[in-house]
Amino acid sequence: MPVPDAPVTGAHAEQTPPAAGGPTRASRLDPAIAARLRRTPDGLVAAVVRQHDTGEVLMVAWMDDEALHRTLTTGRATYWSRSRQEYWVKGATSGHHQYVRSVALDCDGDALLVSVDQVGPACHTGHRTCFFTELPVTVAGESA
Amino acid sequence: MPVPDAPVTGAHAEQTPPAAGGPTRASRLDPAIAARLRRTPDGLVAAVVRQHDTGEVLMVAWMDDEALHRTLTTGRATYWSRSRQEYWVKGATSGHHQYVRSVALDCDGDALLVSVDQVGPACHTGHRTCFFTELPVTVAGESA
Repeated sequence: MPVPDAPVTGAHAEQTPPAAGGPTRASRLDPAIAARLRRTPDGLVAAVVRQHDTGEVLMVAWMDDEALHRTLTTGRATYWSRSRQEYWVKGATSGHHQYVRSVALDCDGDALLVSVDQVGPACHTGHRTCFFTELPVTVAGESA
Repeated sequence: MPVPDAPVTGAHAEQTPPAAGGPTRASRLDPAIAARLRRTPDGLVAAVVRQHDTGEVLMVAWMDDEALHRTLTTGRATYWSRSRQEYWVKGATSGHHQYVRSVALDCDGDALLVSVDQVGPACHTGHRTCFFTELPVTVAGESA
């Protein structure tokens, strides 16, 4: 994921003790949706972000229940920063906004596919996508 | 992610105590790659899987260091099952193999983009993709 933009002022949700399998922080997310989420130990689901028309995969970031609620109700992609432990709205500082076109949940509730209209590069490095580092695939002595 | 196929026989790596920021289980992954990973508290990175030619996003699964090592060196997508706590090779039981064409790491090391040639449906439900559940995006009183 890219380096977060500036935090949202007053964005810290009330800290509540982690419930087993439940959200880590208080949230206004529709309980029917929340019940379908299967979270990491720190209360997050992976959000795969793609450009809505080309299908290009731009980045992966993380959402807790409240970040998903804000994304669905504001139309602006909003994430939880694992390193900074706060919410951030993509583009708030950089201007590289993500306008949400659709959001899909996967079959077992641990990942979201967020289709956006990405303004400018998605990655803080200036690359369009964060996935610009290829790893070597070497099978049975051959390179792929 | 889909329901895992049958586990790989003898696939359990030696259990080692989790190191802060390090891998949870023993692995043969290239240390130079391992050093770039930024893992969840349970030692995993998110693997976004897409069809290599169409770019369709098929599923998200999870890899620890060893699963990534096996993926890179066997050319068969191999994951860590969070629910079953074991490795699984996609398609081993279902026949819905994923032949790996390329793997890219994102800019901050917490997600992989795995481009595959997917045989049949990626999802255990029979859908081509696991992301078939749309969530409602409702902005300022309008539905998107």
